[in-house]
Amino acid sequence: VRVAVVAVGDELLLGHVVNQNLAWIGRTLAAAGVPLVRGVEVPDDVDAIRSVLLQALSAADAVVLTGGLGPTSDDVTRAALAAAAGVPLRRDRELAAALADWYADRGLRMPPGVLVQADVPDGARPLPNPVGTAAGLRLQMADQVVYALPGVPAELRQMVETSVVPELVAAAGGPAPVLTTQLRVAVMGESLVAEHLSALEPDLPDGVHLSYLASPGEVLVRLTGRDPRVLAGLRERAAAVLGEAVSGLDEETLPATVLRLLSGRGETVAAAESLTGGALAAALVDVPGASSAFVGAVVAYSSELKERLLDVPPALLAGGAVHPDVAGAMAAGVRRRAGSTWGVATTGVAGPDHQDGQPPGTVFVAVAGPRADQPTVRALTLRGDRAVVRSLSVTHALDLLRRSLGAVARIPEQRT
Amino acid sequence: VRVAVVAVGDELLLGHVVNQNLAWIGRTLAAAGVPLVRGVEVPDDVDAIRSVLLQALSAADAVVLTGGLGPTSDDVTRAALAAAAGVPLRRDRELAAALADWYADRGLRMPPGVLVQADVPDGARPLPNPVGTAAGLRLQMADQVVYALPGVPAELRQMVETSVVPELVAAAGGPAPVLTTQLRVAVMGESLVAEHLSALEPDLPDGVHLSYLASPGEVLVRLTGRDPRVLAGLRERAAAVLGEAVSGLDEETLPATVLRLLSGRGETVAAAESLTGGALAAALVDVPGASSAFVGAVVAYSSELKERLLDVPPALLAGGAVHPDVAGAMAAGVRRRAGSTWGVATTGVAGPDHQDGQPPGTVFVAVAGPRADQPTVRALTLRGDRAVVRSLSVTHALDLLRRSLGAVARIPEQRT
Repeated sequence: VRVAVVAVGDELLLGHVVNQNLAWIGRTLAAAGVPLVRGVEVPDDVDAIRSVLLQALSAADAVVLTGGLGPTSDDVTRAALAAAAGVPLRRDRELAAALADWYADRGLRMPPGVLVQADVPDGARPLPNPVGTAAGLRLQMADQVVYALPGVPAELRQMVETSVVPELVAAAGGPAPVLTTQLRVAVMGESLVAEHLSALEPDLPDGVHLSYLASPGEVLVRLTGRDPRVLAGLRERAAAVLGEAVSGLDEETLPATVLRLLSGRGETVAAAESLTGGALAAALVDVPGASSAFVGAVVAYSSELKERLLDVPPALLAGGAVHPDVAGAMAAGVRRRAGSTWGVATTGVAGPDHQDGQPPGTVFVAVAGPRADQPTVRALTLRGDRAVVRSLSVTHALDLLRRSLGAVARIPEQRT
Repeated sequence: VRVAVVAVGDELLLGHVVNQNLAWIGRTLAAAGVPLVRGVEVPDDVDAIRSVLLQALSAADAVVLTGGLGPTSDDVTRAALAAAAGVPLRRDRELAAALADWYADRGLRMPPGVLVQADVPDGARPLPNPVGTAAGLRLQMADQVVYALPGVPAELRQMVETSVVPELVAAAGGPAPVLTTQLRVAVMGESLVAEHLSALEPDLPDGVHLSYLASPGEVLVRLTGRDPRVLAGLRERAAAVLGEAVSGLDEETLPATVLRLLSGRGETVAAAESLTGGALAAALVDVPGASSAFVGAVVAYSSELKERLLDVPPALLAGGAVHPDVAGAMAAGVRRRAGSTWGVATTGVAGPDHQDGQPPGTVFVAVAGPRADQPTVRALTLRGDRAVVRSLSVTHALDLLRRSLGAVARIPEQRT
């Protein structure tokens, strides 16, 4: 069963609203074994919706139409659906009565315009909306079906789960969910990751896809298919090739991996941040249960605070705060001040301007731990704007700490 | 000029990634006077992309194709574009040389697969990518044009601004932009904001729209239209009604407003964070030039660090760290330790579990300043998951600081 989504609304094309509904429907239907083949956004215009709907029906067996079912003049989905099916609109008496009841129950006067929500294309069956006033519609067109649902996420989600998913799963002959497993690789370029894994590509079984999703500082290597054992075997092969470059599996982010490794050793970490300005600490605290291994951080954004709160020697700071030894002293300083097992630190130039004669992207990250005499420092030359440089610095600092903590992957556990 | 966006990527249809690019392009082109007529999401499949692209060209004069230009095997946009145009792919020598240079400049070996990024549909002109390695492509098809751009947001945005917008504005015969102006209101519910502004609605001139966009902790009151003077007058009326609830104008975020107010007074702030874990500091550092007023922060996630690094009295902590007096002591402590004019602090329960017998959402934010004897503390009961509670706590803390600094709005300045 091929399913498309057509989302109606000027706000989606003007960029006032991001189409979160599409992603949610995509995830929900994929988990039910019915992946989407197409998504479309179209303005509040009868002719445009009609044309897009007919195109979608040329590529799909079922279309989920979202939005434009409300009572205001820009809600034209009902009219467009009737036009696409070549049928008139008729007023549904039960829907009209239900709307009147809804207002009467709440002691409210019903604005007269509300009743247009009882107009349905001839032949369409109303779908109950347990949350709001706009009913959905189900219209069979020969051997295809269109579900028109409200765009309000809470209403849409209930109706997809109760009305759409069961029908589509039944039509598909029972569920065969699309499974996804992924390896996460920090601080390695997408091309290099792909080169490492190129040997896997010729052997991929039918229906299994290998894809890469790159974001600043991380590449997700994603395997999708329908047989969990095949996917697990491929993931194991990929992990063996990538070795310690693997920074996490599936949904476990780099901060979560670091915290899990620390907790497993009964150890703690504190952070000292300059250019990242709290983002490293915030990334760790994002993980529920972070307090088991993360004790705190000092954001020493000014040089004065690097001395006052982290004991970085003034003589060192006199040469500028963007220096590998400053990063090392910050990591050691926060470890001592906080009494933690590990200290991790960042200093550098986020931009847009030069600082201490150094260009944006010049960054040093450091880790101080219980065994080494000297902190470990990694020197970086990062490209990107202020936000990207800061985000990459967080990833590099966490990845340096991860590598200091030993092997990451839980693959041996999952092999059983 | 009618413009459509076709976004390529399995991840969009599987719901792993939300199509933020579409919303950004929509906003950017609307601001340039060229609103989108269509958005489409399509899987990484040559035939599907080709078919969708031809359909989009039946409804639009120009198509922006995003994603699928990378070096890996699932990057098939180049092949699909060539198929749609009915032309072969050829290797572009200049692009190939530029790729080799990119790796040589960095002292890196070029993985051989990278060179597929130099394959372009015959007749296409490469578009420079100042940020990454994947060039964009511009292909004229009779009197229509297709721009193929990388899906990585930072790369896409630069290329839309430098290559796409100027051409489309010129083709449209000069800009007639849809203007947007907005008032930002922190920590007030959407219905209440709308109720305050209901008196404006009957007077709105034709072509002017008043809309509300609510996100946790902030409501954007958005006025769109084409006459800047009409919009400015309406915004002034709305600001007068909302008074000190207005936390910012247009694109100036709450952290930026706070930093501007501080800089204007020649004052500084330091933060003491518990449940927000660095997110308050990071929000301030997100603003370029933050160092003029933000000196640093102490993230005292454990109770021990609240004592060690912020001098919160142990007797106070013995009763639990989620307490208004702890928030006040943290704000005063970081102000003293950092030597700043102001201290701002957060403590509370982010969840998912109870802490010190208090439920998630119990939060205290505090501000300590130069004049008051006692810190100002705001007690909050917040609803939402861990991330929402933390984000709302940051907003409340910054809003409390903003109100301590006096009037925000630059409206009198803009009246001239």
